Amino acid sequence: MKYKVIFQPSGRRGEIEEGKTLREAAIELGVGIEQVCGGNKVCGKCKVQIQEGYFAKFDVHSSMNNLSPIGKEELRLLNEEEVKNNYRLACAARVQGDVLVFVPEESRVGGQIVRKAAGEINIELDPAVRKYYVELPPPTLEDPEGDYERLMRALKEQHGLEGLSMDYHALRALPLALREGKWKVTVTVWNDREIIGVEPGYNDRTLGIAFDVGTTTVVGYLTDINTGKVIAIDSMMNPQVSFGEDVMARITYAMEHEDGLQKMHEAIIGGINKIISNLCNKAQVGVEEISEIVLVGNTAMHHIYLNIYPEYLGVSPFTPAVHRSLDIKARDLNIKAAPGANVHVLPIEAGFVGADNMGVVVALEPEKKDDIWLIIDIGTNGEIVLGNKDKLLSTSCATGPAFEGAQITHGMRAAPGAIERVRIDPETKEPRYKVIGKEEWSDEVKSEARGICGSGIIEVVAEMFKAGIIKNSGVFNTKLDTPRIRKGENGQPEYVLAWADETAIGKDITVTQSDVRAVQLAKGALYTGCKILMKRYGIDAVDKVILAGAFGSYIDKEASMVIGMFPDCDLDKVVAVGNAAGDGARIALLNRRKREEANAVARRIKYIELTVDPDFQTEFMQAMYFPHMKDKFPHIQHILDKIPK
Amino acid sequence: MKYKVIFQPSGRRGEIEEGKTLREAAIELGVGIEQVCGGNKVCGKCKVQIQEGYFAKFDVHSSMNNLSPIGKEELRLLNEEEVKNNYRLACAARVQGDVLVFVPEESRVGGQIVRKAAGEINIELDPAVRKYYVELPPPTLEDPEGDYERLMRALKEQHGLEGLSMDYHALRALPLALREGKWKVTVTVWNDREIIGVEPGYNDRTLGIAFDVGTTTVVGYLTDINTGKVIAIDSMMNPQVSFGEDVMARITYAMEHEDGLQKMHEAIIGGINKIISNLCNKAQVGVEEISEIVLVGNTAMHHIYLNIYPEYLGVSPFTPAVHRSLDIKARDLNIKAAPGANVHVLPIEAGFVGADNMGVVVALEPEKKDDIWLIIDIGTNGEIVLGNKDKLLSTSCATGPAFEGAQITHGMRAAPGAIERVRIDPETKEPRYKVIGKEEWSDEVKSEARGICGSGIIEVVAEMFKAGIIKNSGVFNTKLDTPRIRKGENGQPEYVLAWADETAIGKDITVTQSDVRAVQLAKGALYTGCKILMKRYGIDAVDKVILAGAFGSYIDKEASMVIGMFPDCDLDKVVAVGNAAGDGARIALLNRRKREEANAVARRIKYIELTVDPDFQTEFMQAMYFPHMKDKFPHIQHILDKIPK
Repeated sequence: MKYKVIFQPSGRRGEIEEGKTLREAAIELGVGIEQVCGGNKVCGKCKVQIQEGYFAKFDVHSSMNNLSPIGKEELRLLNEEEVKNNYRLACAARVQGDVLVFVPEESRVGGQIVRKAAGEINIELDPAVRKYYVELPPPTLEDPEGDYERLMRALKEQHGLEGLSMDYHALRALPLALREGKWKVTVTVWNDREIIGVEPGYNDRTLGIAFDVGTTTVVGYLTDINTGKVIAIDSMMNPQVSFGEDVMARITYAMEHEDGLQKMHEAIIGGINKIISNLCNKAQVGVEEISEIVLVGNTAMHHIYLNIYPEYLGVSPFTPAVHRSLDIKARDLNIKAAPGANVHVLPIEAGFVGADNMGVVVALEPEKKDDIWLIIDIGTNGEIVLGNKDKLLSTSCATGPAFEGAQITHGMRAAPGAIERVRIDPETKEPRYKVIGKEEWSDEVKSEARGICGSGIIEVVAEMFKAGIIKNSGVFNTKLDTPRIRKGENGQPEYVLAWADETAIGKDITVTQSDVRAVQLAKGALYTGCKILMKRYGIDAVDKVILAGAFGSYIDKEASMVIGMFPDCDLDKVVAVGNAAGDGARIALLNRRKREEANAVARRIKYIELTVDPDFQTEFMQAMYFPHMKDKFPHIQHILDKIPK
Repeated sequence: MKYKVIFQPSGRRGEIEEGKTLREAAIELGVGIEQVCGGNKVCGKCKVQIQEGYFAKFDVHSSMNNLSPIGKEELRLLNEEEVKNNYRLACAARVQGDVLVFVPEESRVGGQIVRKAAGEINIELDPAVRKYYVELPPPTLEDPEGDYERLMRALKEQHGLEGLSMDYHALRALPLALREGKWKVTVTVWNDREIIGVEPGYNDRTLGIAFDVGTTTVVGYLTDINTGKVIAIDSMMNPQVSFGEDVMARITYAMEHEDGLQKMHEAIIGGINKIISNLCNKAQVGVEEISEIVLVGNTAMHHIYLNIYPEYLGVSPFTPAVHRSLDIKARDLNIKAAPGANVHVLPIEAGFVGADNMGVVVALEPEKKDDIWLIIDIGTNGEIVLGNKDKLLSTSCATGPAFEGAQITHGMRAAPGAIERVRIDPETKEPRYKVIGKEEWSDEVKSEARGICGSGIIEVVAEMFKAGIIKNSGVFNTKLDTPRIRKGENGQPEYVLAWADETAIGKDITVTQSDVRAVQLAKGALYTGCKILMKRYGIDAVDKVILAGAFGSYIDKEASMVIGMFPDCDLDKVVAVGNAAGDGARIALLNRRKREEANAVARRIKYIELTVDPDFQTEFMQAMYFPHMKDKFPHIQHILDKIPK
């Protein structure tokens, strides 16, 4: 006897043999229903709602229903509300008549979407690591087959998994796990290819960590791979900072010291491991529960955390050891995680455009857009990608650490006490500013400022330019009549942003001529990169400017255009997307198809080496001006027009 | 213009475009010609002899020949004799007319056969590790592609290799190797799948080590994988012996001590590493040149060297952790070899029939035979395989260490001074014997004996039985009138094989009643295993008996049948094949197809657990007799008939 079964929302339908489970029906009709336990009524992931043919209130009178009565396994896994609303487990309910079944989003294979709290990125869940629960028949003298072969048989029968290899450490764990779990175990499978872990009993919690390894800062996101939720975040200063502030300094350190690479490698691996234990402590989970790790970083960070000699990144023709993504056992890198865990390293584009930039691309997908986007990832090294679905170019420019508050007289990191917002009255040249950690501006409370962070530096220079304190060449106008402008210790002019008595450091906080020069060099480098990419692309303007990097979220769009960090654009089309590199790492942790896309797009992005461009020197010199020596900025012309001559 | 090119001995022929090399012609026509260097005229492996259309003596007059004139690269790689005999490099000689080309065996892909010096096993060379030489275009600013992608491009173009992954440590070595080799490198490829090593320049030497890890002895064979030749052999006592003499004792040690497994694992890995360095020292090669290692061992050794808990091997239903062969990075096992090297572990059949027995099967291929073979691997644990192409059964029996000279009053290992051959005069009961290290027998020289080794034990017991000194029940006939038979210290009877003054130890060397009992137990266990397997197979007699294991080569076939180690058989059909387990390991090192065959045949062999057989006790009791309580031995009946009553 057969009955009609219809699955919604897919609408798939068919005639199903009496007595088959809804799960068997779904498999027959090609409807993907989630399940970890292989139909063993353990995981409760295959919840479906019956819309016609079954009513929970009639369940005790099974003859009135077209499904088998609800069993005790189902009552254990469904809550009262669900039972009342005609929910059943697809692996338990058997067909006894026609039914209409609704598969809720969370029960659909590949149906889950993680919506990012702050931002526009949605991640479809298709992780490389997945857990499968299996129950094995114990061996007997008649069936003495070995543990591995027995497990493979069960995985094939219960989950349709075939041809898997097994990590050595998972194999080592197998005999004890099987016996401790009384022949019921959960296996962790990587990329449908390899069993990387075995644990006794049922456990569907799957954890991973996405790392953004910046030149200055390292951030780790402990993530629940089943839901995509970030459980804990931890960050620290990159411990390599003691070997050099920027990428070139670290490459040089590796070249000049025989154990330089080894030392820096150990430093960053130590940092990563520290973050891993902090994250596990915060979330009260064991390090051995971390099933996968994703790393992004610029090319130099990439080479150093992989312990690959980075010299050739730093000399022409700037060749990296490898572009494509890598999967390396965490134990080979001495990274603490589950014994069989892999580390996935995102691909890199070219010598100086690294995996962090790939993270941005993975998160934003410019390769799928019609509009031409200019993506600027501002860090110690500026990385730029330009293009759309037709063509993508990239480059990198040595912005230096000015935007991170370094090499600035009163520069500091974005921490409490740092000046982050500045307004200067164009008439009086008097400033107002706001420090991190206080709600009110400096004209309302004593600021207790300690220094100026990156976004503050950009704003104060923009405001000084708008108020006529510095000229478009960056030179101070020393003829203005205000005590704020004075000669500093070494005779160079400076602007007093905060008087000693309002600060927490008991000293005037000033912006000096050389601070302005550092900003000019940094913004000039970025602008030149954008300009040359646009020239090579054959365009005069872009449709959208994306400011990536945590830093990009804090800077004022108008101020950064006023100083000419990037070419003119409608300010509404300038968007900050936060730490897109970190987003890219999280996406790669949650969706393996995106990893393949990243490899493909990395090979499509053409790298442009700026310094060999014949116009580079001229362009750079012109870009040092505020906002530029020659280029027009129609979208902020009204602001520029107001600057006192 | 096209010309006719014929390759011999395959006879493949076709029309080839003028100017193509013979190598290109061979590829077009599907003729496999060896090459390591990818046609770069570096390796000289593609030597061919031109039989028509080219004569070296006319070479300077190129118009008289149908091939391009010989070049200086060829003259460097061919010797004078070869040049005179019209040899050319296929990658250099270009077609200018019709030619008949002979491809010698050593230039044929897969054509090389290693003939074993002593034995009947030939190994076709098809190793898992192969070297490929490639020349890369150096990167430029116009072509700045990374090292890995550049290498992959060249491997595809020059060797047709695609889709390779790269071991992490090979990747680490890549940037320096490329630059040190001036963009010419040799890569080591494992199983057409993974690049496991990179070295600068051209180097086709490929080395591997095959290990036979016995319960008592560990042997390593350093092998040239390109020729199959064994370069050096080294062996040592298994360092685990201090944790227990036999397999059960070691399993018990692992169960009873929390760090027992770890300690034994470290001991055997230490032993393996010691052998590796000894082998490398002997052959004057670097440990990092060892590209692959093959391990065979019985199931307990297998689990312990893999650091897998062995308890479940020792308790019913005797389930191993895994049957199939494994490939594990040497570094994961802390085995010293090239950083990317793999360890291949041969499959195991069942709880007590391990990878060493698989070695025997791989070497002897009973699964391809019509005749029914009985393969007996005699060690501390006896392993038996019975069958032919239709069906294969196996079992194992606890023979104990008696055959290795242990648990015998004057037992010793097969070393100088050990009595290995014995004859006893049936009339006088006076013995003659021969010790290892002396050419003459004891009636010609002073023997300076130190003890009795395994083969000596079997012979002396057989001779004592034939001379009527012991009865078929093993009991001494104390009524014989000879000073050789006496009561020993503890009152039990003993036979004096050597008087104190002829030995090197200054003591009488005797065979006691309990020594005879130990031999009875050991041979009874073996015989019972054979018998029950034959019963299950449904046969009364076998076509051939194969004695495997180094020990099998030393024992006297007749003596072993007289004591009843195995069922009756034509003595001409009893063959000793030496250390077949070691041969199996060497074969797996040199031929990867054999590895797959081993997996397939391992799954076909049905394991029979002796102790659960209802007849086991009875059979064992009857098998304790010399040669047996009931079974007939027609092939040695003439010997048995002569035994004095």
